[in-house]
Amino acid sequence: MGLIRNRNYAFNLLCFVLIISGGSVHGRRLLSQSRPDPNYVALFARWLVSQSSWGVLSTIADDLGGAPFGNVVSFSDGLPDQGAGVPYFYLTTLDPSARYALKDHRSSFTISEYPVGTCGKADPENPTCSKITLTGKLNEVDAKSKEAATARNYLFAKHTEMKDWPKDHDFQVFKLDIEEIFLINFFGGPKPLTVDQYLHAGKDELTAI
Amino acid sequence: MGLIRNRNYAFNLLCFVLIISGGSVHGRRLLSQSRPDPNYVALFARWLVSQSSWGVLSTIADDLGGAPFGNVVSFSDGLPDQGAGVPYFYLTTLDPSARYALKDHRSSFTISEYPVGTCGKADPENPTCSKITLTGKLNEVDAKSKEAATARNYLFAKHTEMKDWPKDHDFQVFKLDIEEIFLINFFGGPKPLTVDQYLHAGKDELTAI
Repeated sequence: MGLIRNRNYAFNLLCFVLIISGGSVHGRRLLSQSRPDPNYVALFARWLVSQSSWGVLSTIADDLGGAPFGNVVSFSDGLPDQGAGVPYFYLTTLDPSARYALKDHRSSFTISEYPVGTCGKADPENPTCSKITLTGKLNEVDAKSKEAATARNYLFAKHTEMKDWPKDHDFQVFKLDIEEIFLINFFGGPKPLTVDQYLHAGKDELTAI
Repeated sequence: MGLIRNRNYAFNLLCFVLIISGGSVHGRRLLSQSRPDPNYVALFARWLVSQSSWGVLSTIADDLGGAPFGNVVSFSDGLPDQGAGVPYFYLTTLDPSARYALKDHRSSFTISEYPVGTCGKADPENPTCSKITLTGKLNEVDAKSKEAATARNYLFAKHTEMKDWPKDHDFQVFKLDIEEIFLINFFGGPKPLTVDQYLHAGKDELTAI
């Protein structure tokens, strides 16, 4: 009986570990697909970014009196459930955002949890329905670099139609070099979160909080 | 038989009229809930705005080096299916967007069709999945004005929890005074659309195109 109980205990423990690790047994998946506790700020931010496929990219519109111009774009921060936190975009200068960014790199990228489908009945502006704004510089990635090739893999894995987009539109990889992070995922105002904490989330956050 | 046929014809015609008028028999509802033909540009833009409940509001962040700062917000442009095209917001200066707007009114408001659920299999960045950016000035509406009372009705009708938001947060009505419109709803780049055409959509657009 004791052996059976121990086996049951071991099985339950294994199930628990698999559940909290997001069901992955590959060890390379730091982020769980299930919604993290909002108190695990960096982990939560990374989860929101990795589970999203699009957002609004804001740049400065020099032809609109310097107005902040938000534009709906797709993005990817990694292979599915292996996001690294840095958003990559596939943009053409036929679209204003890329043109604006090449003149003025100041930018932000904004994501809502609402379309992810995990806000329950909360309004999109309710603090319990999370939102993140990554502010920084939007830069074009050298098309021949290894980083661009990796980013294209990230993008095409989440946006399968992208690889077939018109060649003559000259889509190029852009990335947001993050400088500041604004995250709301519960009552009480924005959560303190540095770029370093965000980029290294999941490695030691459970002990750091 | 002829009379019955005529009655059937009249009934079918009535059904057709009800369908294309969005099922309304009140006569005040200009917009259909069904997705308009993308060629009816102003009508389409108004449909996208009226069928959406949230978007990203971009302002200039003076404390982030003048970066364009996008923020997820809820909005309303009217009672359900009676939208007038002007987005109203319910903002507190505890949130940065309202603070930024009071210092620098330049702003834009961006909406994607993707979360509306009518993009089919198209990627959020595919031009057939529509998106709109209204650029202009974000202004606070005098809280005691008739316009503010109307706007609160618009907002609370679509966002029922708003009326119970904390009084001490001092939420106020803001509106975007639209100056430019960027709409993509098909291949071929942004659609030409003036603010006047947008605000008066549905009245004569079917004959104007």
